[in-house]
Amino acid sequence: MVHYKNPLLVLGCVPEWRDKILLCRRAIEPRLGFWTVPAGFMENGETMQQAAARECYEEALATVEVGSLLAVVNVTRANQVHVMFRAKLLEPQFAPGPESLEVGLYDESEIPWSELAFPSGEYTLRQYFADRSAGREEHHFTELTSRAKP
Amino acid sequence: MVHYKNPLLVLGCVPEWRDKILLCRRAIEPRLGFWTVPAGFMENGETMQQAAARECYEEALATVEVGSLLAVVNVTRANQVHVMFRAKLLEPQFAPGPESLEVGLYDESEIPWSELAFPSGEYTLRQYFADRSAGREEHHFTELTSRAKP
Repeated sequence: MVHYKNPLLVLGCVPEWRDKILLCRRAIEPRLGFWTVPAGFMENGETMQQAAARECYEEALATVEVGSLLAVVNVTRANQVHVMFRAKLLEPQFAPGPESLEVGLYDESEIPWSELAFPSGEYTLRQYFADRSAGREEHHFTELTSRAKP
Repeated sequence: MVHYKNPLLVLGCVPEWRDKILLCRRAIEPRLGFWTVPAGFMENGETMQQAAARECYEEALATVEVGSLLAVVNVTRANQVHVMFRAKLLEPQFAPGPESLEVGLYDESEIPWSELAFPSGEYTLRQYFADRSAGREEHHFTELTSRAKP
């Protein structure tokens, strides 16, 4: 087991198509069966934006154009930094990748808030919808210190 | 030797005191003798902002209040992501830490552009001064693919 002294970057995005956003239901642990925005560990040789787009393709077989910075979540208890962008689906085509059970486009009123996999995803979506209602595109920092719900 | 599959985060800031900014001359390799903004590897258990403030204290014995996001530099050739913030010195007190030969406050006209240690630092300072002249505080993304000057 490698002991990392430095935090790992997790990159993700909120892919939008018209007024809906794309969510994935996880086919793997942790949090199998719960919902998430497409996100995963950044790899060597890619930019943050490329990592966010790659994760979206891997988890939802969807091609996106990555937009503005949305959220930076310092998950200090897990030694991770989650960086989330806005993104636009280039066409309404998607399907579950190997790590997803189900993928779909949802209205704000349909978001399964009580079945989201991770607190960073919930924070990201709350900021996304708050900014969208206010007609702005800002970025938001937070720190999450507590563990995810069991 | 540990082989990292994931990029490392480097956190730094541009500390300001009135119209001057704080720079450090490096006492260590790489780029010994060249100038840099305070920056270094983020460690476990801290937020991005805490890492930027810690590095400033370690390298310049200066206490800062970290402000807005300034630059995100994807240094893909080195598998690093450099994240730079604006910061304010709480008082004009500083001195070289063990990794610095010299630390000082400089006007824009005094920046040693040809003696900067790293391209990410040069990018950060150029954006900082451009935004300051324009009276705005934005954040800027770039990718650096080439190696630093020898």
